[in-house]
Amino acid sequence: PAPEALFRAHLDTLTKPLGALGRLEDLAAQLQTLGLTDLRKAAWVFAADHGIAAEGVSAYPAEVTRQMVLNFLSGGAAINVLSRLHNAPVHIVNAGVATALDSAPTLRNTPIRPGSRNMLHEPALSEAELNEALALGIECAAEASAKGFNLIAVGEMGIANTTAASALTAALTGRALYPVTGRGTGLDDAAHAHKIAVLEAVLAHHEPHLTTPEEILRRLGGLEVAAMTGFILGCASHRIALIIDGFISTAAAACAVALAPQVHSWLFAGHQSQEPGHRILLAHLNLTPILTLDMRLGEGTGAVLAMPILESALALYTQMATFTSAGVSAATAL
Amino acid sequence: PAPEALFRAHLDTLTKPLGALGRLEDLAAQLQTLGLTDLRKAAWVFAADHGIAAEGVSAYPAEVTRQMVLNFLSGGAAINVLSRLHNAPVHIVNAGVATALDSAPTLRNTPIRPGSRNMLHEPALSEAELNEALALGIECAAEASAKGFNLIAVGEMGIANTTAASALTAALTGRALYPVTGRGTGLDDAAHAHKIAVLEAVLAHHEPHLTTPEEILRRLGGLEVAAMTGFILGCASHRIALIIDGFISTAAAACAVALAPQVHSWLFAGHQSQEPGHRILLAHLNLTPILTLDMRLGEGTGAVLAMPILESALALYTQMATFTSAGVSAATAL
Repeated sequence: PAPEALFRAHLDTLTKPLGALGRLEDLAAQLQTLGLTDLRKAAWVFAADHGIAAEGVSAYPAEVTRQMVLNFLSGGAAINVLSRLHNAPVHIVNAGVATALDSAPTLRNTPIRPGSRNMLHEPALSEAELNEALALGIECAAEASAKGFNLIAVGEMGIANTTAASALTAALTGRALYPVTGRGTGLDDAAHAHKIAVLEAVLAHHEPHLTTPEEILRRLGGLEVAAMTGFILGCASHRIALIIDGFISTAAAACAVALAPQVHSWLFAGHQSQEPGHRILLAHLNLTPILTLDMRLGEGTGAVLAMPILESALALYTQMATFTSAGVSAATAL
Repeated sequence: PAPEALFRAHLDTLTKPLGALGRLEDLAAQLQTLGLTDLRKAAWVFAADHGIAAEGVSAYPAEVTRQMVLNFLSGGAAINVLSRLHNAPVHIVNAGVATALDSAPTLRNTPIRPGSRNMLHEPALSEAELNEALALGIECAAEASAKGFNLIAVGEMGIANTTAASALTAALTGRALYPVTGRGTGLDDAAHAHKIAVLEAVLAHHEPHLTTPEEILRRLGGLEVAAMTGFILGCASHRIALIIDGFISTAAAACAVALAPQVHSWLFAGHQSQEPGHRILLAHLNLTPILTLDMRLGEGTGAVLAMPILESALALYTQMATFTSAGVSAATAL
């Protein structure tokens, strides 16, 4: 039998009704199938600015990307709090923040350019920039592997990056823009309608060229999205499992799976966010979120929150007594 | 302003878009409102047998109640694994297992009688037995308070106790039996239909007397359900918050709220189980589950699993930087 069937068979010997641990049994079987018998956790957060921010698609000014990176570095952001609580050290990657950042111990300070280009008028990235961003992510994966991590939450920060994620989702899934475009950090009705109008123009501009995953990512993505895509590809090749977070990191995962379908088995969906496109993208990837807490923050927060659930699934698999060892009677034949 | 509004106002100063932590913000505000500024966790599991088991309403033989208590005491059950992982020591209460149990350090071995009476023919408990079971739960709450716990997962073990929970749910909510009666530990279609037929006869027998919460609990509950009801009442009076677990502990919470509505603010719903009546009962109580992982095990497992989410909510509330302290720009006026 296939390895997963053997792991399922072990789950059926444990002192609980068949299947009574629900999704935890799926998670335990996936972890065992991947060979993850102890979990060494970390979080990686990729930051960059977006040229499309100039079109007024976000409730926050673009300088917030850089300000939030500084907040990450001083330990005051939500991802820092959760990473401390759940023992998953945070690594920050400057993939292309618009203004220069000083070096810091937990920062990989390697911006590829000061923000992506404005995709309303040109591809977000040149071919060289796309390759550099993918390579940056792959280097980060090598670092993660060298440090011995095997379960990593993938997060991001980038003002206007839900706009990129909506464009990517529409292009990858064939869905219309309206159902995949949300309110990001908090747009009102008029600003939301403007965001959709900008996205309609973006897609009209690039449509004839959106024929491969590389071109979709290059034209509609961003520096942190491409770096996350490279990171996911690299981690899977190093046998590191990934917990994807919200709409933007899931868009990167969808690009990675489009480029290399075998990546899929290394993915866990940490949560389902309030961004409407996230649900559509998770369904497109055939991933079931572990948590649904109506979050919409990014940074990897929903991914780190799912870590104790994965640890619980693994502990139950390895530590529960069996019906035989505990002397518990089996179900009566019905 | 009311205290909760002040806590909400603090959440709005933290470095995240307004409301972006979703349900975590609700949980943080509730914890602050209750004065829970550090969490001292435990789990309490109440076990008893049920006379109605004689009617063939469970997939497992009744001796499994006792066998699983022994499994709890030797540390091999799911609740033990999760309690160790999440630092919530387990306390086991024998409220009325049918066969005598030897004493053990983590066992309160005070059975009120060897299982409840068969509610198909008579009330599950006499008035004296109901009062003893409620008092047992209240004593456990005093013990929990003396030990300094302030956040407790409430779980149970008792073969046939989903039958009691379905009867209680129908009586408390006025819903028909079919939508509130599930497959418990794994009934097939015929056994499920039989369980519903037994429950129809049970309700027909007791209907004229189901006029107060006490009588509903006495006639249709069970020793562990009544002890949990007393425990929930006692904990709330000691200002201890409770995480209720699955269908049966939620039925006890519904009885407690029917007896003393002010208990409600001390309740968190750990998860939503696969038992169809659980969703109905949570809606009746106006409680939103923290997790939805398709579990149906009981023992307090879904409640302990929610603990890291509550700890996360509290840590975010207390540790995140504010827009001012971190020098992050606020949202642009839209």
